[in-house]
Amino acid sequence: MLADMNVKEFLEKTASNSPVPGGGSVAALSAGLAAALTEMVANLTIGKKGYEAAEEDMKEVAKKGTSLRLQFIKDIDKDSDAFNEVMAAFKLPKETDEEKEARKSAIQEGSKSATLVPLQVAKDAFSMMEIIEKVVEKGNKNAVTDGAVAAMMARTAVLSALYNVKINLGSIKDTAFVEDVTKQVNELESKINEVEKKILSKVAL
Amino acid sequence: MLADMNVKEFLEKTASNSPVPGGGSVAALSAGLAAALTEMVANLTIGKKGYEAAEEDMKEVAKKGTSLRLQFIKDIDKDSDAFNEVMAAFKLPKETDEEKEARKSAIQEGSKSATLVPLQVAKDAFSMMEIIEKVVEKGNKNAVTDGAVAAMMARTAVLSALYNVKINLGSIKDTAFVEDVTKQVNELESKINEVEKKILSKVAL
Repeated sequence: MLADMNVKEFLEKTASNSPVPGGGSVAALSAGLAAALTEMVANLTIGKKGYEAAEEDMKEVAKKGTSLRLQFIKDIDKDSDAFNEVMAAFKLPKETDEEKEARKSAIQEGSKSATLVPLQVAKDAFSMMEIIEKVVEKGNKNAVTDGAVAAMMARTAVLSALYNVKINLGSIKDTAFVEDVTKQVNELESKINEVEKKILSKVAL
Repeated sequence: MLADMNVKEFLEKTASNSPVPGGGSVAALSAGLAAALTEMVANLTIGKKGYEAAEEDMKEVAKKGTSLRLQFIKDIDKDSDAFNEVMAAFKLPKETDEEKEARKSAIQEGSKSATLVPLQVAKDAFSMMEIIEKVVEKGNKNAVTDGAVAAMMARTAVLSALYNVKINLGSIKDTAFVEDVTKQVNELESKINEVEKKILSKVAL
């Protein structure tokens, strides 16, 4: 699993001339970092004097953050796996008509997962903005900048994942699929910068 | 060293109720991920047919990217260390006048490094935008979205580091220092979103 590598090695492997891990896996990791910071602010709030009223909210945020973090860790691999699946499909034999047909359909299938995996990451990272807003509003004031960093990492995760959706959509022939996914991409893309801005406007320094 | 932890553990430690690693270290890691993706696009371009004209540029980009990546890996620790220094200063004895004075000056010193470390990360991440623009313009077209992700991760690193500068500036009494740093913060902050936008506008999908 990619997340079993140490941070230094992960960066080194990303930097190499192998296409994975690439932007898609980095998007998932960025979302994972946002989830972790959100949990941290919640954990720095729970049990703190003066924050009794936020206690229940923060416990729920921490729980949701943990579950998202563990999901995003899996997504780091899922994205690289989907890319490898497409590459493997391209390498299938294409001598006979039957082989050509099988190869074509494997490429289409692979490309579909290579769009659906980052689309799900984008949706999950977007959904996280709600708990990030909560930690910024009600969480430990000493950690408010950690909430701000979480908001920006989540925004970058959403947009990064969407770039990976869009580049893979380019090779998909199923127009209904392309139309449906494009609609979802546009919706997330048009909203995320505003949501980030709204959260950051609540971080007064 | 924090970067010797595996990715899963790093995220877990971030999520815990210990304030470090926090947003400052995540900013440095985000910058490191941007550097790694930039190197990757350069490495996927070097030696590729059709990209001969970009060869020299890409070699230089890869070299600069590597050196920045290794620096950012060190900054992950530097930021957490600076935070710990401030915390240690707060715990110094304050019985006698002499102790009070020594404690106060240790807090001031610590807070100054806790602003200068992320300020340097912000500057270095900002400086990276130049090589990111190069890989987006001249690099392997198949990896153009990786350049886009690098631009967004670098932008987020700059702004995240600046949030950490600003929160630490709050406890510094040296007004000349505060003024000088604030000026630098404002300059980086006012430019980075535009630079990101400009680079992303060159990523046509």
